[in-house]
Amino acid sequence: MFVHLNGDLVPDAEAAIPVSDRGFRYGDAGFETLRAYGGELFRWDAHESRLRGTLDALGMPDALPGDLRDRVRETLDANDLADAYVRVSVTRGPQAGKLAPGPAEHPTVVVVTKPLPRGGRESDSVWDAPARVETVPTRRVPDSAIPADAKTHNYLNGVLAKRDLSPDADAALMLDVDGNVAECATSNVFFARDGVLHTPTTDGDVLPGITRDTVLDLAADRGIPVETGRYGPEALRDADELFLTNTTWELRPVSALDGRGYPVGDLAETLADAYDDHVETAHY
Amino acid sequence: MFVHLNGDLVPDAEAAIPVSDRGFRYGDAGFETLRAYGGELFRWDAHESRLRGTLDALGMPDALPGDLRDRVRETLDANDLADAYVRVSVTRGPQAGKLAPGPAEHPTVVVVTKPLPRGGRESDSVWDAPARVETVPTRRVPDSAIPADAKTHNYLNGVLAKRDLSPDADAALMLDVDGNVAECATSNVFFARDGVLHTPTTDGDVLPGITRDTVLDLAADRGIPVETGRYGPEALRDADELFLTNTTWELRPVSALDGRGYPVGDLAETLADAYDDHVETAHY
Repeated sequence: MFVHLNGDLVPDAEAAIPVSDRGFRYGDAGFETLRAYGGELFRWDAHESRLRGTLDALGMPDALPGDLRDRVRETLDANDLADAYVRVSVTRGPQAGKLAPGPAEHPTVVVVTKPLPRGGRESDSVWDAPARVETVPTRRVPDSAIPADAKTHNYLNGVLAKRDLSPDADAALMLDVDGNVAECATSNVFFARDGVLHTPTTDGDVLPGITRDTVLDLAADRGIPVETGRYGPEALRDADELFLTNTTWELRPVSALDGRGYPVGDLAETLADAYDDHVETAHY
Repeated sequence: MFVHLNGDLVPDAEAAIPVSDRGFRYGDAGFETLRAYGGELFRWDAHESRLRGTLDALGMPDALPGDLRDRVRETLDANDLADAYVRVSVTRGPQAGKLAPGPAEHPTVVVVTKPLPRGGRESDSVWDAPARVETVPTRRVPDSAIPADAKTHNYLNGVLAKRDLSPDADAALMLDVDGNVAECATSNVFFARDGVLHTPTTDGDVLPGITRDTVLDLAADRGIPVETGRYGPEALRDADELFLTNTTWELRPVSALDGRGYPVGDLAETLADAYDDHVETAHY
């Protein structure tokens, strides 16, 4: 497999970054994960926009290469991939060893791809079964410490949440420091009650997931009532159904939360079908 | 300069890690910075112990190499350095792209050194003048999100705090999410009032600095009364003197906090002298 590194396609075994890179030393980098469906990049503009926002939040708006989409396409072509997972990272680059950053004059830009099954109608999901979710002790890093809408290489919070899980659990539900439901370690959480779809507001410590955003749009298109807000754990316990969203899983129903069972509900099925249709038919 | 990378000394221009390394992807790594004074590693055991604690907290206790001290010495020798800054990093190593970590069977171990002036008596400090400190909006990541006593490559919190500073400020004072004084972005904070030395407790969201620990020991040796606790910003405003500690600065007095001036006080001078003596004479 080839990796796109600083403008060049290189074999993955040779794709390496200097130990002086701030992406290594401090996790001083933004990233995105996205999917290609049949060679088309799903919601590229939304991913590029969020990455721009992350780099702005880190104070390196100029680090974003103007030709990033072309680099992604070149990587997919070089690896002969049409249905793929894509990870794009932009770091502040190698700098002398001071915590206060200098200008990102030589950012490090990495594009990694790997095969994923085709999504859309008639497809198999990446996941085998609905998710078993556990609420973990690790709390979501608050926005006041690191902006919640920045997707960065500081991902230990999620790593620790995953490590909190029992062996048979799939997803780690994190509360914020005030005890509100935030998100799972790599996914946004939705719940339904009495036909109304709910998800935590991105005014809280919640990553604005692009799959989350797509699902909210699809719900609105279909006239499904939607509410966003701040919810305690009891809101999930009392829900009729739960599901998770992220780029790789798309929409994944929840079969259990902290040992309590949930059915795969009508809203999850309706919206999963709508998502598949969207993948098949939309221009994105 | 040579870098020690996974057991080998390599020229720094060749010291690179794979893009699949979790230290790069997630900042999934622990590190220490320490000093060599005249070829002796200052408080090696304390640094190794804290690094072991960090790797335990990240769930990779076996990643710590048994010969790490030897690797540091080899790096200093190869670079002909007796008075030096040393940075040691241990990552979970290259792994397939899943957030949930596998066993750290192939950790990445990096030792980087650079020259620093000799400390101790008759020496020049690394800093030019007492520190001008500003309280920044960025709050310290809480222990409930990432253990406060772990020193990891997730260092964006400190990077963002540094970026909050005015151009003429030296140190970024962070409060915790509850509004207590935590620490500066790369140093612990001390203040004195009526002859009593105070510093925030490590029961709060405070890195247990090794220089902090040394200074507390030196104060106890000299009969200086010490109190640790949780303090609001007003405790610093009302202090008679303030100083900061870290491995590189050792003890650095504060001349200003948020525009208010402070004298270099008796306790700072006494303890800086004691620190210099300790560097000269102790077996560490």
